[in-house]
Amino acid sequence: MRIKVINPNTTQSMTETIGAAARAVAAPGTEVVAVSPTMGPVSIEGHYDEAFAALGVIDEVRQGEAEGFDGYVVACFGDPGLLAAREVARGPVVGIAEAAMHMASLIATGFSVVTTLARSRPILEHLVEAYGMGRLCRSVRATDIAVLDLEKPESDARQTILAECRKAIEEDHAECVLLGCAGMADLQRSIGEELGVPVVDGVAAAVKLVEGLVALGLRTSKAGGLAHPLPKAYSGALAGWAPSDAAALRAAE
Amino acid sequence: MRIKVINPNTTQSMTETIGAAARAVAAPGTEVVAVSPTMGPVSIEGHYDEAFAALGVIDEVRQGEAEGFDGYVVACFGDPGLLAAREVARGPVVGIAEAAMHMASLIATGFSVVTTLARSRPILEHLVEAYGMGRLCRSVRATDIAVLDLEKPESDARQTILAECRKAIEEDHAECVLLGCAGMADLQRSIGEELGVPVVDGVAAAVKLVEGLVALGLRTSKAGGLAHPLPKAYSGALAGWAPSDAAALRAAE
Amino acid sequence: MRIKVINPNTTQSMTETIGAAARAVAAPGTEVVAVSPTMGPVSIEGHYDEAFAALGVIDEVRQGEAEGFDGYVVACFGDPGLLAAREVARGPVVGIAEAAMHMASLIATGFSVVTTLARSRPILEHLVEAYGMGRLCRSVRATDIAVLDLEKPESDARQTILAECRKAIEEDHAECVLLGCAGMADLQRSIGEELGVPVVDGVAAAVKLVEGLVALGLRTSKAGGLAHPLPKAYSGALAGWAPSDAAALRAAE
Amino acid sequence: MRIKVINPNTTQSMTETIGAAARAVAAPGTEVVAVSPTMGPVSIEGHYDEAFAALGVIDEVRQGEAEGFDGYVVACFGDPGLLAAREVARGPVVGIAEAAMHMASLIATGFSVVTTLARSRPILEHLVEAYGMGRLCRSVRATDIAVLDLEKPESDARQTILAECRKAIEEDHAECVLLGCAGMADLQRSIGEELGVPVVDGVAAAVKLVEGLVALGLRTSKAGGLAHPLPKAYSGALAGWAPSDAAALRAAE
Amino acid sequence: MRIKVINPNTTQSMTETIGAAARAVAAPGTEVVAVSPTMGPVSIEGHYDEAFAALGVIDEVRQGEAEGFDGYVVACFGDPGLLAAREVARGPVVGIAEAAMHMASLIATGFSVVTTLARSRPILEHLVEAYGMGRLCRSVRATDIAVLDLEKPESDARQTILAECRKAIEEDHAECVLLGCAGMADLQRSIGEELGVPVVDGVAAAVKLVEGLVALGLRTSKAGGLAHPLPKAYSGALAGWAPSDAAALRAAE
Amino acid sequence: MRIKVINPNTTQSMTETIGAAARAVAAPGTEVVAVSPTMGPVSIEGHYDEAFAALGVIDEVRQGEAEGFDGYVVACFGDPGLLAAREVARGPVVGIAEAAMHMASLIATGFSVVTTLARSRPILEHLVEAYGMGRLCRSVRATDIAVLDLEKPESDARQTILAECRKAIEEDHAECVLLGCAGMADLQRSIGEELGVPVVDGVAAAVKLVEGLVALGLRTSKAGGLAHPLPKAYSGALAGWAPSDAAALRAAE
Repeated sequence: MRIKVINPNTTQSMTETIGAAARAVAAPGTEVVAVSPTMGPVSIEGHYDEAFAALGVIDEVRQGEAEGFDGYVVACFGDPGLLAAREVARGPVVGIAEAAMHMASLIATGFSVVTTLARSRPILEHLVEAYGMGRLCRSVRATDIAVLDLEKPESDARQTILAECRKAIEEDHAECVLLGCAGMADLQRSIGEELGVPVVDGVAAAVKLVEGLVALGLRTSKAGGLAHPLPKAYSGALAGWAPSDAAALRAAE
Repeated sequence: MRIKVINPNTTQSMTETIGAAARAVAAPGTEVVAVSPTMGPVSIEGHYDEAFAALGVIDEVRQGEAEGFDGYVVACFGDPGLLAAREVARGPVVGIAEAAMHMASLIATGFSVVTTLARSRPILEHLVEAYGMGRLCRSVRATDIAVLDLEKPESDARQTILAECRKAIEEDHAECVLLGCAGMADLQRSIGEELGVPVVDGVAAAVKLVEGLVALGLRTSKAGGLAHPLPKAYSGALAGWAPSDAAALRAAE
Repeated sequence: MRIKVINPNTTQSMTETIGAAARAVAAPGTEVVAVSPTMGPVSIEGHYDEAFAALGVIDEVRQGEAEGFDGYVVACFGDPGLLAAREVARGPVVGIAEAAMHMASLIATGFSVVTTLARSRPILEHLVEAYGMGRLCRSVRATDIAVLDLEKPESDARQTILAECRKAIEEDHAECVLLGCAGMADLQRSIGEELGVPVVDGVAAAVKLVEGLVALGLRTSKAGGLAHPLPKAYSGALAGWAPSDAAALRAAE
Repeated sequence: MRIKVINPNTTQSMTETIGAAARAVAAPGTEVVAVSPTMGPVSIEGHYDEAFAALGVIDEVRQGEAEGFDGYVVACFGDPGLLAAREVARGPVVGIAEAAMHMASLIATGFSVVTTLARSRPILEHLVEAYGMGRLCRSVRATDIAVLDLEKPESDARQTILAECRKAIEEDHAECVLLGCAGMADLQRSIGEELGVPVVDGVAAAVKLVEGLVALGLRTSKAGGLAHPLPKAYSGALAGWAPSDAAALRAAE
Repeated sequence: MRIKVINPNTTQSMTETIGAAARAVAAPGTEVVAVSPTMGPVSIEGHYDEAFAALGVIDEVRQGEAEGFDGYVVACFGDPGLLAAREVARGPVVGIAEAAMHMASLIATGFSVVTTLARSRPILEHLVEAYGMGRLCRSVRATDIAVLDLEKPESDARQTILAECRKAIEEDHAECVLLGCAGMADLQRSIGEELGVPVVDGVAAAVKLVEGLVALGLRTSKAGGLAHPLPKAYSGALAGWAPSDAAALRAAE
Repeated sequence: MRIKVINPNTTQSMTETIGAAARAVAAPGTEVVAVSPTMGPVSIEGHYDEAFAALGVIDEVRQGEAEGFDGYVVACFGDPGLLAAREVARGPVVGIAEAAMHMASLIATGFSVVTTLARSRPILEHLVEAYGMGRLCRSVRATDIAVLDLEKPESDARQTILAECRKAIEEDHAECVLLGCAGMADLQRSIGEELGVPVVDGVAAAVKLVEGLVALGLRTSKAGGLAHPLPKAYSGALAGWAPSDAAALRAAE
């Protein structure tokens, strides 16, 4: 099985962190290919960044369909471009926010999310509702660490995140904590050990969900809202993205 | 007051229909400029089309900020790119789906939406929930007319839409019907007269909401989830979209 | 266009404040007539006061229909008598609570309401739910200022309200604040400037929504829950309110 | 124990039906006094009628407080004036819609309501949500029988209601049916026997709930949204309703 | 009328407290029989304890059907086994959590629950949602008193509970407090007097609801999800619980 | 990795079907042990059956903890005993209803469930809400096939189920169908091929979720509502179930 793990931002060091987290949990027969798009934002902090990151995600899935991937992970906690990517793909596409939330719901009666900037809070709260997790999610907590600062030793990110996780447990009665940014994937193990409650990294969670769906023979439904894009003309700088390829793929199935 | 009405698809004839609908209701002092992006899909029928249409919307708002527009209408019933556009704009940005639903909630205890293809139903149902209209919206009904066929006389679109509106009134007890595509804007008056219940066209509704917000001095809040995009690098084909301009605008405020 | 702005309480000084706020935003061609009923409570602080204020609202709308008004604003943040008034009116009737919430939803991802007495909190929370704003409204905050004390310089109302707005921004992450009483209409501009986030006054918001609906040709739907009252006998002190006039109006349409 | 059962409309024959239903289930030590207000609509079919009926309800509760009643039933399925009446009363006030729904929730996993005119459907659906019964209520069904026609033999009301109840069982999988009008109280027994599922009449249900609350020593909370009306001036035709009496009652407690 | 009040745990002293609370409010003609199962946990603190307590509840209801009881109270605030017990019973079965919530909803616009251990909080929050009380319930508060410590003078339980109730009123704006454990039934009167807001004990509340339902002739609906268990074989240690008796009862009706 | 798949009913042929479905999707390194309890109902059709089946589930998990299993599947679509079993287990416990719903949410924008008897519909609808799937689940459809008749060739179960799935697609716009009974596990592949939309069998789905959780090192949170049962005495026939073993296990961790 081949899974493409897409870091929707273009920061290569983060792609490597993500790829390592994905490979660390992948099953023996699974090949993980971690990529960043060739274009787009260096980090994703808001709706504007997400709109452009979505293109990179779609691009990688389009290529992936030609390359024969079985499934995809969208490795940014805002799940940018997820539904559009599902239209392109034949196999499953899983976002790391949804993955983390679904997995958490199986091992705890309530969780909190610890994320980066406060401006992302409404985005994550919207996902919480869209995924039906309103009753389980006790809060979305921001640390005010910028995404790219996660990688800088001087940011003391690990301590700040750990402190916020502790508040989630004490103040929200969270039984489980979700790391609300793909760039935190490398912290899952060490923070989990210190906290004594399960800590969920969405990258790893999404890999296992894609593996599971592929093993079950479950592919994205093409009978409604996730059907392949209809063939049509696109103009201007976006002409190359017209969904003709998708139509060809559809015909080839 | 200057309002830019953005048809997110590139079909010029539809832009004209939309512009006419907008101008027909604009106040004397309002200048309506109706545009289509220079790039993107000819029609928007699904999440994939929406992801690309969002870029055109953002592009037009970015330009609009330099051109001095006071507010914007996103004239596609899926409200593509709405939240990203709000990050860019200083003034208000209103989508036609939200506009139609808010206005309908003021004149009826329940409404139905009549739209084009069935594949758009989940998109609109998601918006209904996101806008808090779940209790008011009695159903989203698809006519299976493709967006571009709305303009073709041989499609008999008007009769099909009228028939679906009638079903909404009889079967859903809808007290008001929303036209679920910007391309239906020219049907509002005639269908409303035949049905005997209010029919809401989102394009016209959004123009009045933008006019209202501007008159009230209410601009997009920059204190949280809709703050201006953070300045950062974008790479590759999207490098030109890096949010530096926005930063400059912010500084200029 | 003629809009009747109804202050549901009988305090004339407050009617003048409300009228001024309405006229300040009305479009050139709009005539605003601000009135108080000739009967009812001097201020509205609870369900009991609301029940009686509703009569005054209905009375003014009934007269307004004969006087040829195009639309109405119910200028008390509990929206008393709103649905009954809609049954009477042919044109639109908009409450200031709903107006403020709908407008806020277009410029922010979350808002808080700052109101007068704590006893009104459950009333406003009920409206928040009824209007589908549960996800957007982050809290309803009471200042414990009585309605009529808003006008007394010694109450220091402005400072108390400002302080509560600041708490809403800091503690609730509100991106926008709604002034939860018509008697606060004159504070909108100055408080907004100090806070740096949009502040919404429902009176002004409702005027623009009524103007918008009238311009769109959208009147209250008569096809269901807001149909004209059925003609029937009323007895005793309320005999004069029997819905015969409404029937006549209906016939005259 | 003395319970005042208030028929909010002025139709005396309906008050008698209601009184008989109440007395039929009252406990030995309970005195039921069934009244109609001296003013107001002959039947309640819409928000306008409700607004006026609320005054009659409040009037009867005000008098009742002086007369020493222990609790009150508001015997119209729209529960008009309920929250205002609770502010006036020291003891419990129960509406028949809420009573029927709460009781039904204890004996079935889902119920439907069968009511009179279609225009009342949105009112009842609003109550269903306000009372938290959205998951239990499978539908609100209208029979298009006017309230006063319930008493006319030629209306064949019983057969029409029975047929609608049967549809509720078959089409909605309702396990219990609620009679959605106080004027149907006399049908509860015979319809229940024919249907083979529990049929709930709200009048009888409310009497038992009031009896229960009084026996438990539970009175309306005065610590928030249902506190006694604040003393203040009312002007004009409503001057006599100023909440001074309430204040006196409060002092006398 | 004969009501069986079932304490689902096996602690006899608690059964006596519960029985006394039940008898204190029972109507003259009501015989209350308070029992504990002959098997099961000494206290119920979590889902595991609940699963076993459910058997005791079912057992007592099965016997009760043969003994001719008219209705049942399940006197543990987690309402264990409630729906299974309803399948067995012909008459009504009421849990004390649901009883307390329904009664509170009639006298307050918001309540809080004060319970024992923090581990029970998610269980009660789940019931709050399942009973449609999410809008009314302002919080579930744990005191960290173990159930059996309620009876130990040295635990100072009364003071701890009282302090938590005070917090509920001040911090949650609770207008009414629910005692979240059957073992607190004896505190209702004294705590209520000190707090000045209504305090609801579910045991007493449930007795009045069962009395009410029986008086109304309302029995558990057998037309759907609460129908008598289907006759079938049970094996092993549970063979004696096979629903044949129920079938016989059904035939005997 | 060793996973215990627990068929909560005692019908051995069904356990074999379930075991085969589980093994068919298990990863190479996973050992699946499919068991039925030694006691309890032959099939689970209602709350009463569920209450007893829960004991068998708990029993198997208790034994499983001693036997060294890494995780568990509860293979009945009502997820009986799930939360109690989670208290006992250190590793993950996944129910097949939740598994099917979570997996479906990743590949479709809406699904329907096709189950056996109509009496199970409210149970499944309750789970849909409890799992946050209310927006995704378009209907729960009953076929009126008894659970044990699924295995009888003369019941023509496959055709009936297939027909109901077709209705779900046509009438509910379901994009995916969930087989709402563990006894249907063997139909997944063939029905899926005929329908042309994904068909989800919860048994297989749950196996992959448990495998995923174990691989991620995610175990049931012991920091709140799912903590190990507190040690305490159980009396009578249930004495052997007292949670002392669990305490020992806890100590051994």
